[in-house]
Order: sequence, then C-alpha cells, then structure tokens
Amino acid sequence: MPKQKLSIVKIGGNIIEDDLALNAFLKLFSSLKGNKILVHGGGKRATHMASKLGIESKMVKGRRITDAETLEVITMVYGGLVNKNIVAKLQALQIDAIGLTGADANAITSKKRPVKEVDFGFVGDVKNVAYNAINKLIKAGFTPVFCAITHDGNGQLLNTNADTITSQVAIGMSALFETSMYYCFELNGVLKDINDKNSVIKHIDTNLYAELLNQGIVADGMLPKLENCFDALNHGVKTINMGNTSMLTNENDNFTRITL
Amino acid sequence: MPKQKLSIVKIGGNIIEDDLALNAFLKLFSSLKGNKILVHGGGKRATHMASKLGIESKMVKGRRITDAETLEVITMVYGGLVNKNIVAKLQALQIDAIGLTGADANAITSKKRPVKEVDFGFVGDVKNVAYNAINKLIKAGFTPVFCAITHDGNGQLLNTNADTITSQVAIGMSALFETSMYYCFELNGVLKDINDKNSVIKHIDTNLYAELLNQGIVADGMLPKLENCFDALNHGVKTINMGNTSMLTNENDNFTRITL
Repeated sequence: MPKQKLSIVKIGGNIIEDDLALNAFLKLFSSLKGNKILVHGGGKRATHMASKLGIESKMVKGRRITDAETLEVITMVYGGLVNKNIVAKLQALQIDAIGLTGADANAITSKKRPVKEVDFGFVGDVKNVAYNAINKLIKAGFTPVFCAITHDGNGQLLNTNADTITSQVAIGMSALFETSMYYCFELNGVLKDINDKNSVIKHIDTNLYAELLNQGIVADGMLPKLENCFDALNHGVKTINMGNTSMLTNENDNFTRITL
Repeated sequence: MPKQKLSIVKIGGNIIEDDLALNAFLKLFSSLKGNKILVHGGGKRATHMASKLGIESKMVKGRRITDAETLEVITMVYGGLVNKNIVAKLQALQIDAIGLTGADANAITSKKRPVKEVDFGFVGDVKNVAYNAINKLIKAGFTPVFCAITHDGNGQLLNTNADTITSQVAIGMSALFETSMYYCFELNGVLKDINDKNSVIKHIDTNLYAELLNQGIVADGMLPKLENCFDALNHGVKTINMGNTSMLTNENDNFTRITL
C-alpha cells in the first residue's frame, strides 16, 4: 500500500511578526490538502520581549546564547504567545490544530549541546522524533503545530532551531508517510545574487549545491537550511521546496526545489 | 459495561509558585492510577510578569480585568512558561503529558463575557467541552494538562477561571467516564473557622452547604469553588474532594468530601 502524504511546513519570524502576513499564510496552510504539520519559530518577538524584561540578548558568533532567563522568555513567547495564537487562528479556519513543544506527547527529545568553545546554554540538539506519538495525533484528526522547543526527557526544556526541528520531524515522519517539506521565508527562494530578489535558483541538486558552495554563492543564513535539506533528502524525505509562502499555492514555479 | 475511571485534578497558584511543592505534587499526581487530567492556573506569576513589563493589574471588585496586554501575559505565562514546564516535569516522571489550552484540539470553547456593569475584557465563560476530542487524547495514552485559557472558536483566546475549567471538563468527561474531581489548594479543606487550619469540615452535602451559606461560614474565595462542586455533582460528576495535595495519597481523611 502506498504511503499517505504528509506536508511539513516551516514559517519564519518575519511572517509571525506581521499579523496580516500570518493570517494570509494560515489561510493558505489551512487549504493544503491531506495531513500536515506546521513548525514555527518566533525569534524577533522573543528578543523584543527579553529586552522589555531587561534581559540582554547574548550572541556569540551570530548565535543566541540561551541562559536560564532567555529560556523562560522563549518558553513564554514560542510555547505560549505565538503557538497558542496560531492554534486559535487555525481553529477558526476549521483546522483542528494542537500546539506542541517537543515535551508534549514526548514528541521530540534532544540533548543539551555540550560545552566546547562556546557554551550555548539551554540549547538542544535533536536526538529522537517520536513519530508514532505524532502519528497518533494525526490519525486522531489533529494538525500538530510545533514551536522551536524540545526537552531532554529529564524535565528540562531546551531551545532548538526551528529549521532543524522541521527537517528532523520530516525525516522521522518519513517512516510512515511520503513527506514533503516546505521552508517558507521572506525571499522567493535561494538566490544566485543576494541583491537581486528575482535571481531565484529554481532547482538545486547535490552537484549544483557543491558548486554553489565552492563558488561561495550561498549566503550565510541559507547554508544550514540547505544542509538540513540534503540531510532530509538523504534520510527519506521525498520533496523539498524553499521560498515564500506563495509556493504553497502551486500557482507559480518561482521557488527553489531541492533534490539529490 | 461500567465506565472507566477518570480523575481531574486542579492545582492552584501557591503550588505553582513553589518549585519544591510543585515537584512533590507532580510526583503524587504521576502515581495516581488510571486516566487523569491536570488543570492549573498560575495567577501570581502572571501578575508578577505583568508588573515586570509595566502592565498595571486592573482589578474591579476583586476580579482581574483582562485587557489585551494582560491576555498576552496570561497566554505567555499560563500557556507557555507554567504549562510547558509542568509537561516536561511529568514526562520525566514517565507520564506522557500533553499541554493544552482550550484552543488546542478545540477542547474548550467559551463565550466572551458580555459587558454589563463591569467589562471584564478578554474573559470567557465555558460554552462547550469537546469531551470526544479530549477522550481521543486519553485513548491515545496521553495525559492532558490544561491551563486556564479557552477560545471562542473565531481565533480569540480568552482567560477563563481554572476552577470552572476543572468542573466543566469534569462534567463533560462524565459522559464517558466515572469522574472524580479534586480541588487542591493550600488549606486542608473547607474550614469551619478560617483562623483554625484544623477546623476542616470533612463532609459537605447539599443541606450542610445551605446551612453554611445561611450562617455565613463559608469564606469568600470558597464560595465559587463550592458552587462549581455542586454544579458538577448535579451534572454527573461522581466524587469531589477538596483539600491540600496530600488527599491524593488516601493516607488520611483530613480533607473535605462534597456530595449531594
């Protein structure tokens, strides 16, 4: 029997910051046919809330350090404010959403990142995706909405990159479903020229990826995303698209497809 | 076929404020046999967070007014910080918890309280408990953990009294289960003399309740709790106990049983 299809869609901070954009996206998402999972971050709002609370955002090499206070803010903003408002909005669109961190349903376990040159604090690297638990929710008719928080199984919540959660959940669910993964962000896709928003590379395969890396064409922020994509494809994920949310409509082909 | 048993336990703000007390309670809760649901508030922490953010807590006749800013704080604190930490702690105790607002799984729908003498703001009165949806989670092996937030079905989250959520969920679930409801708070039970913590009234039935009301013995804060209890008993809830968390151990009888 062929596997059922499952779409895993990740939205970034820019959509979350903009109520109109978020509403438009959620309408698109709700019209996606078949089983689906949403993953969201919420970075800027967390930074904003931290600063309101007088908590300094500590960055090392462009990456956020998650101390105990920052983890509290992230838990409030990602797990509470952003996640629960998205769930309520999806319910209004007749999508029976259920908001989750990795602790809920024990869905995503991670390991606190070991301290080497940098102590990232309460940051977790994904160790296990409980695809059977997530599947129970899907089979019961719910649409899981994950925020970028996992847990270590010993009572500790951990801040975890939303792109990585997305690819790891996609990989995990591939045991049961034919999975499609969508990275939505503010650009139309991976760009050849970061200054030209219309220079979308419409298809990247393993060879082109190597070439782009060699030529230094891929921008910094795009690198880990592409790494996640090829990891996902190498571990059972069927199709991957990157671009702005309009790629979900299938009305144009102005986005980046990733294949092996 | 006799109905399966289900325990619905509500903990108050005092336990949540105290990490040691919370851990001790969660250990007790995790050892409860059979199906169970946890409901929590988190009032003081929300007030504290609101004041940190410079949001004034507005009270009218001793009741909090939930304006838009306050609702944001409540969503962050109840739905994020408190709920997700409880879920992670329960997972560490091998309870497969799943944290919920009423929006998640469309579990609890409410109606924004109409503006009469007082405009309570974003406060919801429970309209519907989707017991079949909650039952799907229980049947899948999950332990629901509700915070004191519901939604109106049109995308609006609403602040809702945790005691009321507890009794309404207990009533709803009584369609499918033989339900026991536990109101845990800092006192040993309903007290005859508010100044004597050992003056626990061990059993209150409808007649005694009327007598206590007449004599003005029941303290203000206890009144709505008792009203919820009798409402619950009149709508199918089987047993109700009120007292501190030690009543969950069945090791003493120093708590208040409520019956019709």
